[in-house]
Amino acid sequence: MAAGLSFDNEVFSKFAFYAGVVLLKTMLMSPWTTVHRIRRKVFASAEDYVAFGKGPASGKQDPHIERVRSCHQNDLENVIPFVLIGLLYVLTGPDVATAVLLFRIFAGSRLLHTVIYLNAIPQPSRAIAFLVGLGVNTFMAFAVLKRAW
Amino acid sequence: MAAGLSFDNEVFSKFAFYAGVVLLKTMLMSPWTTVHRIRRKVFASAEDYVAFGKGPASGKQDPHIERVRSCHQNDLENVIPFVLIGLLYVLTGPDVATAVLLFRIFAGSRLLHTVIYLNAIPQPSRAIAFLVGLGVNTFMAFAVLKRAW
Amino acid sequence: MAAGLSFDNEVFSKFAFYAGVVLLKTMLMSPWTTVHRIRRKVFASAEDYVAFGKGPASGKQDPHIERVRSCHQNDLENVIPFVLIGLLYVLTGPDVATAVLLFRIFAGSRLLHTVIYLNAIPQPSRAIAFLVGLGVNTFMAFAVLKRAW
Repeated sequence: MAAGLSFDNEVFSKFAFYAGVVLLKTMLMSPWTTVHRIRRKVFASAEDYVAFGKGPASGKQDPHIERVRSCHQNDLENVIPFVLIGLLYVLTGPDVATAVLLFRIFAGSRLLHTVIYLNAIPQPSRAIAFLVGLGVNTFMAFAVLKRAW
Repeated sequence: MAAGLSFDNEVFSKFAFYAGVVLLKTMLMSPWTTVHRIRRKVFASAEDYVAFGKGPASGKQDPHIERVRSCHQNDLENVIPFVLIGLLYVLTGPDVATAVLLFRIFAGSRLLHTVIYLNAIPQPSRAIAFLVGLGVNTFMAFAVLKRAW
Repeated sequence: MAAGLSFDNEVFSKFAFYAGVVLLKTMLMSPWTTVHRIRRKVFASAEDYVAFGKGPASGKQDPHIERVRSCHQNDLENVIPFVLIGLLYVLTGPDVATAVLLFRIFAGSRLLHTVIYLNAIPQPSRAIAFLVGLGVNTFMAFAVLKRAW
């Protein structure tokens, strides 16, 4: 079986799939924030008020927009490290079943995290989803450090 | 022709060039914010006021500094996913002309986005620059998902 | 000696090690922020106040939590570009000694940056740590652009 960063390597191919899913999800948080900004007419910059708003810049913050932004920021803090550490982890030549399980758990935990956060589902559900994703990243980071030592 | 992540692979070489350009641009937003902070004496931390400011921390926010920071944050949200998705996209072995066109459109749209944002050029110019970059990322993400499926 | 992204390539192996260290450090800033939030009962979302707080959401900001968050954000702005540019730089086939020196300087400067920031050690110590890291990234970015040109 092929090794390294190639779609002929099953571990890489699965990684690319799940990395694509979580990156796509993260990228779509940006326009999702904008949809909410336009609907609620709360913007970050003066020219946006001129184009899309009705009155002058108010400087107020909207709780729901701040929630979408926090969710996006949490993705940036977790999804981006996942893709980077995951790429290095693929190159350690891990067991296929273990690796695919890790990628699936991570992707599932991040999709759940978003649903939980945007709908304000009571804690500790969000904390658990967050810690599961962080656990996968930490596991892969130690696998990389061990291999590179 | 060489495939995979090697400068002998024309698609990768072009990708590395445009990724280098947009990453360099993104990294330089940090010291650019600092230049504005020192010039306007508005800082984020107390020790910065002691070293570079004249008075005590005021907690006020400066609209221009917030604009530079928003621009930087928008880069982090779009340029980093571009480099990650782009790396996976290069490994799908795309048509050279198509791939280079995508990289050029992305790099151009992000440089324009920065000029438009920092100079507060009226909307919808910034929205268009943003959506063009997002479109390239989304296209590459689906190409990766299709290949990995 | 092996080239490219393989643990048999000494430059890559060293890169993977230092990238793993700084990514791990960056990822651990998230739960570190949460520990401070729970200890000081200052949260970002209403459901967190219900679960972990005593009173209703106050909307107030805590200076120490904002410091941890700024430190984390600065990591995202510098560590993530390091890993991306570093990966491309490894593929340029650099001199082993030079490359390892750059990775070590970067990792050291970021660990120092965190210690300095969290303990509010007087400027210009933090500025120097930041600029050293930025210098390494900029050097690698130009090496990539030169190779890809």
